[in-house]
Amino acid sequence: MRTLLVIGIGAGDPGHLTLGAIDALRSADVVIALDKGEQKADLLQARRTVVDAHSPGIPIIAVTDPERDRNPSDYRAEVRRWHGERARLLSEAIVGETDPDGTAAFLVWGDPSLYDSTLRIIDRMREETGLECVVRVIPGITALQALTAAHAITANRIGEPIHVTTGRLLPATSAADRRNCFVMLDGGTTWNEVAGPDTYMYWGAYLGTPEQILRAGFVEDIGDEVAALKCTLRDSHGWIMDTYLLRELDAR
Amino acid sequence: MRTLLVIGIGAGDPGHLTLGAIDALRSADVVIALDKGEQKADLLQARRTVVDAHSPGIPIIAVTDPERDRNPSDYRAEVRRWHGERARLLSEAIVGETDPDGTAAFLVWGDPSLYDSTLRIIDRMREETGLECVVRVIPGITALQALTAAHAITANRIGEPIHVTTGRLLPATSAADRRNCFVMLDGGTTWNEVAGPDTYMYWGAYLGTPEQILRAGFVEDIGDEVAALKCTLRDSHGWIMDTYLLRELDAR
Repeated sequence: MRTLLVIGIGAGDPGHLTLGAIDALRSADVVIALDKGEQKADLLQARRTVVDAHSPGIPIIAVTDPERDRNPSDYRAEVRRWHGERARLLSEAIVGETDPDGTAAFLVWGDPSLYDSTLRIIDRMREETGLECVVRVIPGITALQALTAAHAITANRIGEPIHVTTGRLLPATSAADRRNCFVMLDGGTTWNEVAGPDTYMYWGAYLGTPEQILRAGFVEDIGDEVAALKCTLRDSHGWIMDTYLLRELDAR
Repeated sequence: MRTLLVIGIGAGDPGHLTLGAIDALRSADVVIALDKGEQKADLLQARRTVVDAHSPGIPIIAVTDPERDRNPSDYRAEVRRWHGERARLLSEAIVGETDPDGTAAFLVWGDPSLYDSTLRIIDRMREETGLECVVRVIPGITALQALTAAHAITANRIGEPIHVTTGRLLPATSAADRRNCFVMLDGGTTWNEVAGPDTYMYWGAYLGTPEQILRAGFVEDIGDEVAALKCTLRDSHGWIMDTYLLRELDAR
């Protein structure tokens, strides 16, 4: 039976790589990578840099990511369709490039458990193409941890819960959950929609990379500036990944 | 000015250590460790193993943790008092063991941002003892990530938020937040208090260590068994650290 390694490689900083991730990478016969097109070429190149640095002999098989409707009428259905197509293409690559008892590795940005589809795609591969495999997951540093480390802050205050959500769901998030609230995958500037006068924001983009940029302050004070900055950065890089923590402070 | 490194060293697995953590450790003049007494001797020994493996020349200064009231009438006030006392002892150790431009490292289990008090203690050191320092944080793999990796599961379902809370607060957590809910620091078996018929649990103890033990199933089916197991394990090890993810599934 084949082994599939799902390896978290951290949020962009080569120093985020764990010893376990390096060991796992070296045990792989091949790395399977989704090529997400020119916009994310920086990310594909960074993945190649990881392999070249720690396991230079291992080939990287780039599978071109299928097209996705970014504004579907049915969000969940479109994600499922898109994952199904990915699963078929990836399964073909794995079967074609490894022996029946071989090992293929997926390198995942951040951690495979957090807003990443690799584990779901593997489930789909098993269901739809009958791929038989053992799956082993190696955790990795997430953008949330890169954010808190860069700001030297804690995620929670003493004894308080933490909420992690998406830009899409943030406006529907309760006030209680917005006390310590991480936001990922915000294509826009949703902080400006939900902030009250006492909402503080710790924001970061390109976390862990040399282009990392940070801002912190009350949304009322810096929300518009960060919105403009995000727009400028997206234009100059061709893409942006940003993450932030919203925190309700005691009234000023 | 002194540099304080707050280094996340992962959840117990030596493979969780990042390259950045190793570099940081090697740049330190001294490691400051809180000695939490015999019950957690395994954890102190594991920290010593990390230093010996990657930076054997660096001394570890063990500071005896002050006493804490585990059942205070005012939880927050007692935590603050306890942190203040810790801050005073640690500040003395840092000033005594490093040059004015030296570097001291704290090795933190998991990640310094998640239910860890080191960053707050450093704030207290600055406030109460006037310690002047630069703080640099290196993120680490958390028990949550060790849990999801060991079970090969994702934290969230497609597009859904994630909640992280404590055993203490779990009963007050909304049904919505319990859809994908990590629980840490549960001294008891709170899963049995909140679970409905469709609540699934992914549980793990001693995550990342050779003693790691996992259970998964509907709380209705395995809740009592895991409660008994936790009791047995605590007796045999002298301590237990466990973490779990509760997930509401569609009706069976």
